[in-house]
Amino acid sequence: MAKIAVLGYGTVGSGVVDVIHMNGSAINKRAGEEISIKYVLDLREFPGTPAENLIIHDFEQIVSDEEVDVVVEVMGGIEPAHTFVKRSLEAGKSVVTSNKALVAKWGSELLAVAEANNVNFLFEASVGGGIPIIRSLNHALTADEIEEITGILNGTTNYMMTKMFYEGADYEEVLKEAQEHGYAERNPEADVEGYDACRKIAILSSIISGRYVDFEDIYTEGITKVTSTDMKYAKKLGMTIKLLASVKRDQDKLGAIVAPCLLSASHPLYSIDSVFNAVFVRGNALGDAMFYGSGAGKLPTASAVAADIVDAVKNADKNVMASWTTPKLTLEDRADTEKKFFVRMSGDLDEWLPKVEKAFGEVTTAAPDDVTGEFGFVTGKIKEGFYEEKAAGFPNILQMLRVEE
Amino acid sequence: MAKIAVLGYGTVGSGVVDVIHMNGSAINKRAGEEISIKYVLDLREFPGTPAENLIIHDFEQIVSDEEVDVVVEVMGGIEPAHTFVKRSLEAGKSVVTSNKALVAKWGSELLAVAEANNVNFLFEASVGGGIPIIRSLNHALTADEIEEITGILNGTTNYMMTKMFYEGADYEEVLKEAQEHGYAERNPEADVEGYDACRKIAILSSIISGRYVDFEDIYTEGITKVTSTDMKYAKKLGMTIKLLASVKRDQDKLGAIVAPCLLSASHPLYSIDSVFNAVFVRGNALGDAMFYGSGAGKLPTASAVAADIVDAVKNADKNVMASWTTPKLTLEDRADTEKKFFVRMSGDLDEWLPKVEKAFGEVTTAAPDDVTGEFGFVTGKIKEGFYEEKAAGFPNILQMLRVEE
Repeated sequence: MAKIAVLGYGTVGSGVVDVIHMNGSAINKRAGEEISIKYVLDLREFPGTPAENLIIHDFEQIVSDEEVDVVVEVMGGIEPAHTFVKRSLEAGKSVVTSNKALVAKWGSELLAVAEANNVNFLFEASVGGGIPIIRSLNHALTADEIEEITGILNGTTNYMMTKMFYEGADYEEVLKEAQEHGYAERNPEADVEGYDACRKIAILSSIISGRYVDFEDIYTEGITKVTSTDMKYAKKLGMTIKLLASVKRDQDKLGAIVAPCLLSASHPLYSIDSVFNAVFVRGNALGDAMFYGSGAGKLPTASAVAADIVDAVKNADKNVMASWTTPKLTLEDRADTEKKFFVRMSGDLDEWLPKVEKAFGEVTTAAPDDVTGEFGFVTGKIKEGFYEEKAAGFPNILQMLRVEE
Repeated sequence: MAKIAVLGYGTVGSGVVDVIHMNGSAINKRAGEEISIKYVLDLREFPGTPAENLIIHDFEQIVSDEEVDVVVEVMGGIEPAHTFVKRSLEAGKSVVTSNKALVAKWGSELLAVAEANNVNFLFEASVGGGIPIIRSLNHALTADEIEEITGILNGTTNYMMTKMFYEGADYEEVLKEAQEHGYAERNPEADVEGYDACRKIAILSSIISGRYVDFEDIYTEGITKVTSTDMKYAKKLGMTIKLLASVKRDQDKLGAIVAPCLLSASHPLYSIDSVFNAVFVRGNALGDAMFYGSGAGKLPTASAVAADIVDAVKNADKNVMASWTTPKLTLEDRADTEKKFFVRMSGDLDEWLPKVEKAFGEVTTAAPDDVTGEFGFVTGKIKEGFYEEKAAGFPNILQMLRVEE
């Protein structure tokens, strides 16, 4: 019998309790022993719920109880989550979390503490909800050098970009609608500014490099400046616009970025719509692969948390996560990364084209039917530093978005 | 130092040797020790290749060598593969294979032998090439009841169906072209008749049920009767046609089938084109997920084999695969499975429609512009037995294909 304690009875925490009740017999079979929830830590009471008789209010009771094998941290936020997780690991308990902010900030430390105490610190649910991308990188794609991971890692913004694509709606309009449907929070900053996706790609970058990648070092642009006019150009070019979080290997360096990008129709991520998440992976032997699923939601996230609990119970005596080491990895300078750029300029195409091609080299132009007084083009593959240097000479630039093919 | 022996230096075998040389340092790091290839068993010699000095011709040398920890069976076929694999496991060596025919036929026995000898029998590469679907079912999606797996599991037929969709070409034409490009074998039976996909879905069915599913019990239809006219109807209905292998839970039974199906544009498998494979999974907590990647090819398959080698070395002292038990599982009778049916009939729609709807209930009709003298329709969800009973009253049926939404 393995006993667990759940820290936090919010959406994910109650989902974890539900999944363990719903699929108990299958879960116990796979874990090799019965898993039972001993405590649920929350400040509130929950009469009439499955947690009714499990609720306690004092973390000390959990950390000092030798019967508790696995602590499930689904409170969110940095404190007290960080303290609780660290103390649990130090007390010889494995910890499972869905808390991306915690993993992005304290992952290196907590993995080391877990290793030192021969327990596990698992966080599948912190990236991509139900998509088993972390376990795949750790245990399945182990014969490859991972050359690229590009993900649609935020359901809120993908819902918004999908609406903008299909309905031609503008940013403010779709944000309002997303808020009304509960897909976006009242303060949507973490999603629409790309902060959430940034933490997730930092975690994946740390895993594939084996070195701590600081999310604060990743250049991050949100979707707030994307307009319905941009989407018209994208369509005209046979593309769409998605908020992409990516890390790519360039010789011995890794470059990481979060930004809204034009994405061509032939890319596997092109058709990932609405609140779904997907992670595209390129390995030097594997080739191209993609993982797709619900990026959030109570049960998909709880499914990933519960699978981590199974793993923690099965591997009670063995540290199974590949960890990453500090000090942090220096990422490739954004100015050195190469890509194509989509640019909109005010003015007349014929008049400006010679100047544009003199600066950027050959470009592909696009002119949606109902857009006037401006023009758009896509450059060839150039370094971002080169682009910025040349762009400085064009005060009539209205918009720039990166292109992913 | 872990020593391995590779049985067979064909496409996959040489790929495995290549991947271990190419990514050796990453592989060794993840395995926790150095992996070195001691023998390559083949009847031929391979001067000038990386296997040149490793080639031996006698399996006894491998099975009797206590230094060999892992045997990699990539010969294909049932014999002598079955004997070699069984004897290796009995000799206390873990075995990794890419051989779906072997796993589908002898999986139950070989998993039991592996368990009895406290070694591992791993076969990630037997289904979906580089897609880590078996490991995900075994180790990641462990908190779910898997309700459905539907896969595009054969690259050859998917290449052909893609050509038929985009180019309007007919079956014989695309088969010839696929053979010319090396995507289809001279004797394409195993692919086009669905036998390959059938073995793969049998393996996945065994994994999710924990019971042996005999591939010979799975109703299997190939793509040989799919015509360009069918594809015209599919397009008119906003669908495509794919060879799908699926297993679905219906209360306490599993139903499995391999057949060409009309697939709606909103299904995640709709956009899987060319030689790519994909596996759609629905879990009762996870919701919908999909895994996509190269289904075959030298390096993607070798990547999966090499990842299994890493697992076998890391878990030298521990049997990690969930096994399935004999006797075999009785699948749901096909007559009891419920789905929609696409039917083409000769004759005039207006004349026949009342009779059709009297038999099948309300239908959705489709009339591609350039098809005359016949009509097509899609039924509501009905049992296959009911469909067959009613269809017997229509001697003018030209085609029937199942519909997946």
